[in-house]
Amino acid sequence: MAVGAHSTDHCLVPGVRLSSIASGIKGQNDLDLVLIEFIEGSHTAGVFTKSAFAAAPVLVGRRHLAQSSSRYFLINSGNANAATGEAGVADAEGCCLALAQATGACPEEVIPFSTGVIGEKLQVECITDALPEIISRLDGDGWLRAAKGIMTTDTRPKITSRQFEVNGSTVTMTGIAKGSGMIQPNMATLLAYVATDGFAGQEFLKAALVASIDQSFNRITVDGDTSTNDSSMLTATGASEVELDSPVVAPVFQDELNSLMLELAQGIIRDAEGATKFIEIRVTGGECSDDCLRIAYSIANSPLVKTAFFAGDANWGRIVMAIGKAGIDIDVDKVDVYVGAVQMMRAGGKEPSYTEAAGAAAMAEEEITITVDLNQGQISESVWTSDLSHDYVVINAEYRT
Amino acid sequence: MAVGAHSTDHCLVPGVRLSSIASGIKGQNDLDLVLIEFIEGSHTAGVFTKSAFAAAPVLVGRRHLAQSSSRYFLINSGNANAATGEAGVADAEGCCLALAQATGACPEEVIPFSTGVIGEKLQVECITDALPEIISRLDGDGWLRAAKGIMTTDTRPKITSRQFEVNGSTVTMTGIAKGSGMIQPNMATLLAYVATDGFAGQEFLKAALVASIDQSFNRITVDGDTSTNDSSMLTATGASEVELDSPVVAPVFQDELNSLMLELAQGIIRDAEGATKFIEIRVTGGECSDDCLRIAYSIANSPLVKTAFFAGDANWGRIVMAIGKAGIDIDVDKVDVYVGAVQMMRAGGKEPSYTEAAGAAAMAEEEITITVDLNQGQISESVWTSDLSHDYVVINAEYRT
Repeated sequence: MAVGAHSTDHCLVPGVRLSSIASGIKGQNDLDLVLIEFIEGSHTAGVFTKSAFAAAPVLVGRRHLAQSSSRYFLINSGNANAATGEAGVADAEGCCLALAQATGACPEEVIPFSTGVIGEKLQVECITDALPEIISRLDGDGWLRAAKGIMTTDTRPKITSRQFEVNGSTVTMTGIAKGSGMIQPNMATLLAYVATDGFAGQEFLKAALVASIDQSFNRITVDGDTSTNDSSMLTATGASEVELDSPVVAPVFQDELNSLMLELAQGIIRDAEGATKFIEIRVTGGECSDDCLRIAYSIANSPLVKTAFFAGDANWGRIVMAIGKAGIDIDVDKVDVYVGAVQMMRAGGKEPSYTEAAGAAAMAEEEITITVDLNQGQISESVWTSDLSHDYVVINAEYRT
Repeated sequence: MAVGAHSTDHCLVPGVRLSSIASGIKGQNDLDLVLIEFIEGSHTAGVFTKSAFAAAPVLVGRRHLAQSSSRYFLINSGNANAATGEAGVADAEGCCLALAQATGACPEEVIPFSTGVIGEKLQVECITDALPEIISRLDGDGWLRAAKGIMTTDTRPKITSRQFEVNGSTVTMTGIAKGSGMIQPNMATLLAYVATDGFAGQEFLKAALVASIDQSFNRITVDGDTSTNDSSMLTATGASEVELDSPVVAPVFQDELNSLMLELAQGIIRDAEGATKFIEIRVTGGECSDDCLRIAYSIANSPLVKTAFFAGDANWGRIVMAIGKAGIDIDVDKVDVYVGAVQMMRAGGKEPSYTEAAGAAAMAEEEITITVDLNQGQISESVWTSDLSHDYVVINAEYRT
């Protein structure tokens, strides 16, 4: 199930080639191995999960990224290589070494990524046996197939692009992401890759990436659960020869990157496991960002609020409950709550003119904004989430992720 | 739906009379109003929700409890009188005043309680009109009917007793509780009342109550949601003339109270909305209680863990995920995980001898203990929870609470 329109239109990025094949990890003829190649001279920044149980590829990837620029991302879906101990780290390193030997790169120029079942040994031979074929199929037009190759419970690929002009040169940026459940990223989401043909160093890219993630992947939740494998990467190939870190270009690049990342992040919510609604929780009038976010996540992750969204029930009492439990010291007699444009609560009690019919009409929309105005400060924050449906339970009761 | 055996056996408590009737608040012929009367000289301690949106009866109850000893608890189900502003406070006070006038008590000797729909005006007339009848029906044998009268989505009453001997005198303690969803209490649960015929002052009772709640109602979660109306009360009528606060009796009393409270709290989990499993999450080998509890709640509230429990899927990878996201700095290479007696994880990776068949057999039990041994300290904590089933979604999508 999936909410809202999406498009698979995208642009190719000079300096980037991709390929995706079925290596047998998923045990079927499904795409499960992706290779992304960047031309020499590319720079890459990355952020990774803050889970204490960070997966083996995350541990290896962090190290390689600190040691070297990156030429290859080697990504498998179907197995997370997480909670696999030292053997898992050796497996991830073995895959990097095999790819390095097959391409003439250094092992540190390869970043490994995995997503799928936690706690199972990685099928290293599936990957190493598939290297000749996946290398031979690298293609600048491989983006959509790569977006499909990284999917697990996703029902559709998440892919989008941005372009902007600098003195007659076009800068292109294309990104792909996967994720549908186990989604409350903490510094990144479960696999997102963005490449641009602009030129920039790792430090600039890292700052731009962190800033954009803070307003995109770090503002979404499906179920409040955080993956062991979250990784988000930004690579600049430099093929356009446009310097991204100039005072004129940098803000434009940041705006376009933010917009692209938000579309990918919202694409994950639109494709959330079992989702029938796309919901923005907007908390305004707060004293600080942290207050707003804690209240927004308290609402967005409440099973009682999420089941009410699924039912299309304008049950603002459950929103009140979720605000109340957030642990923020607020003056409840100032709080207003709206669903869409319909005010349900005014000054801590029911809005006198509110009717169930008006609330139900607003809740019937496929895209809903809940606004909580605390009326005690000037700060606003939004998070995006989905509802909790029968299908979420079905998917996660029947599926081993 | 409900998990595990339960009993409605209980003892009467000298000095306590109860009655319960259908006042019309629920709009049907269902019990929805309960009156509990304590003999003069009784002492009461209480703890209430920490929700910022504490309901009107909680605000009034806190004040009355500080001003006076308590003679009456007036409890309605079907309407929470929460998020009702100053009018809601006036309604709660009006009910106390009416009962005071009808019984000759002071209004401050009445504590009001409400549970049910949030955000709706309390049906005060239903309550005041019913006072003559409910007073006339007060009966020492009214415990079970009272336990039924405070129910909302509960499928069965929660009631239990303890007795112990002191120098040939018997001290009796009986408690009732309600709650099924919106359950992650913070200092109390959604309505629990315990009365004893021992003698003690409010200060002693408060300390005993807080100590027992900390190991019972503050160790359970159904959905991580915290009610606006949580209240838990302990009353000593003194009818047995046994002094509870003597050095010999106090520890016995505390043990019995803890045992009674834990049974009531676990009864709520057994009757959790849609629950098919009763699950203890035990975290051992921690450096401090807070670390253990944060990890235990991270597991207990994870939708992905809870759906795996529902499916009977020994998906220990999701447990790993939930440990990882808890935000505790642990050495993951020391962590062991067990389902029942079956070890699934050893030292951060899969236990070599673990088989899916053994895990599935342990998960098929109706009562399951998950043990996470952090192996980095001496502290242990347990929380109790339920699974996330189709029926949880059905109940909360269709039911307005």
